[in-house]
Amino acid sequence: MTILRQPTRAGVRDAAAKIAAILPPSPLFTIEINGVSVAFKAESLQPVGAFKLRGAWHRLTALSDETRARGVVAFSSGNHAQGIAWAAKRLGMPATIVMPSDAPRVKLEATMALGAEVVRYDRASESREKIAAHLAHARGAVLVPSFDDPWVIEGQGSAGIEAAQQMAAAGLPAPSRVVVPCGGGGLAAGIALALPDAGITVAEPEGWDDMRRSLAGGAIEPVGANPPPTACDALQTTRVAERTFEVLAARGATGVAVSEAAIAEAQRWAAKHLRLVIEPGGAVALAAILTGQVAVEPGMLVLLSGGNVDMADYAKVLAA
Amino acid sequence: MTILRQPTRAGVRDAAAKIAAILPPSPLFTIEINGVSVAFKAESLQPVGAFKLRGAWHRLTALSDETRARGVVAFSSGNHAQGIAWAAKRLGMPATIVMPSDAPRVKLEATMALGAEVVRYDRASESREKIAAHLAHARGAVLVPSFDDPWVIEGQGSAGIEAAQQMAAAGLPAPSRVVVPCGGGGLAAGIALALPDAGITVAEPEGWDDMRRSLAGGAIEPVGANPPPTACDALQTTRVAERTFEVLAARGATGVAVSEAAIAEAQRWAAKHLRLVIEPGGAVALAAILTGQVAVEPGMLVLLSGGNVDMADYAKVLAA
Repeated sequence: MTILRQPTRAGVRDAAAKIAAILPPSPLFTIEINGVSVAFKAESLQPVGAFKLRGAWHRLTALSDETRARGVVAFSSGNHAQGIAWAAKRLGMPATIVMPSDAPRVKLEATMALGAEVVRYDRASESREKIAAHLAHARGAVLVPSFDDPWVIEGQGSAGIEAAQQMAAAGLPAPSRVVVPCGGGGLAAGIALALPDAGITVAEPEGWDDMRRSLAGGAIEPVGANPPPTACDALQTTRVAERTFEVLAARGATGVAVSEAAIAEAQRWAAKHLRLVIEPGGAVALAAILTGQVAVEPGMLVLLSGGNVDMADYAKVLAA
Repeated sequence: MTILRQPTRAGVRDAAAKIAAILPPSPLFTIEINGVSVAFKAESLQPVGAFKLRGAWHRLTALSDETRARGVVAFSSGNHAQGIAWAAKRLGMPATIVMPSDAPRVKLEATMALGAEVVRYDRASESREKIAAHLAHARGAVLVPSFDDPWVIEGQGSAGIEAAQQMAAAGLPAPSRVVVPCGGGGLAAGIALALPDAGITVAEPEGWDDMRRSLAGGAIEPVGANPPPTACDALQTTRVAERTFEVLAARGATGVAVSEAAIAEAQRWAAKHLRLVIEPGGAVALAAILTGQVAVEPGMLVLLSGGNVDMADYAKVLAA
């Protein structure tokens, strides 16, 4: 099933209205860093612990009743899985999620707890795309990609609409620059569409900074062979999509790559100063601020995109 | 300086209006437990990581300009300290806080970072009440107790007004029962005044359950000699106040005592399911629910009162 449209700003606004009808805005917190008030959008506090239910809800609600009845298939290391499972449950749709065997257990368990069927695969030897496509074909179900989909991108962008409203209500300047974690670029592209007047900086783990390199070079470059290990399970995307790249490139977005040590330090900072549990992939934008790789400025908005951690790993980070 | 009035419901409503003018409501989250939707009020997400700025703001804004200029003195292991320091800073008042030498470092540092002068004392050999009274007398400053004060109680109660509004907005039943952490009883008494139709259950650590015993016996009973060690630094109050006891006794409030193990388990549960960092004393009400000591019911409201943790201790709890 190929969908041949581009995501639009109107679509983002439509998604924001649909999501506002079922969920309160995720909290926005303000902290002074180097004398500047920085706004943090805590998508980690969504019911599934990440922003992914936004795109899932916008996509699944756009399906016909007949299509919905045949169910949904997705592949994901966890947060998209939970987003799809959450939206499908709310709509009474069957959901099948293809997840890597090494996905954090908390994400596997949470996806199953939402009533989805989980099919596990080996990240090193099997293709999740092929498994998911096969399942979707066999069941006549719709396959919802985690980022390469106009509805998904528009849905994620609703976080930007909400944040701008919350910043205005808090007496802050309009968003001048958004710093956003980037795997496949769905959240970043959605927010770029949502906030046409803001600069966009994407943050990625070192060695997985394919969006940064792609934006710098003007064409998509995949992650290199044998990328380094990263704690950011949610950002291990080896190639971004034309759709997300084009939106970001057209906006002159740039990227930064942050170290694993800086990501862990950002997780500790969030626990201490915001009292929030943030997963590694959810902390990369904060890390880019704390290292000074991105200078703070008035009107800065930082996305804390997820908070699903395996407790043993998280405890080690906090103890370090 | 003795204040001879009782806290009132009208005072709580006044406090709620004053606080709504300067702070957004702290987030309210809903989770199903045993098939029942339970509302959690996350006071841990306040700017100082605890509810204490409510009472501090209501108290300090009630002072004359002349009194404000002479400053404020308080004694506290940390959260009240930060609440007073935060409110005093916002009002341009000098603040002096008497803190025990063994207070969590995160609370000491945060209090100083808010511009307060910190005077440390030895919990075992010195009287914080005497030190604070001496300082207040010498400076002509107002001494603000952490719970035995009508303004402080009314201010804390504003959390109940907010929560009821948020539960109504979320389509939940009106609060039927509130489960609330209890040290000296300021938050519990304030919420009892705020929500006259709700049952009130206070939660305390085992061995520090003097409010529970006092309510059961109909008269104030202090904590016994040599109470057991507890991780709940915020709840180590050895005697409740007439003011807080009387409000709770008149309402037929009861109490439960929870174990240190149950408190640690509640901290882990909050990190996993709510993605919130909750300090031990902030997790006692949640612990009372999770152990089944308090049965969940529709309209249940649970206060998560604080999230200021020393990271090394917190990491140990999460790793267990």
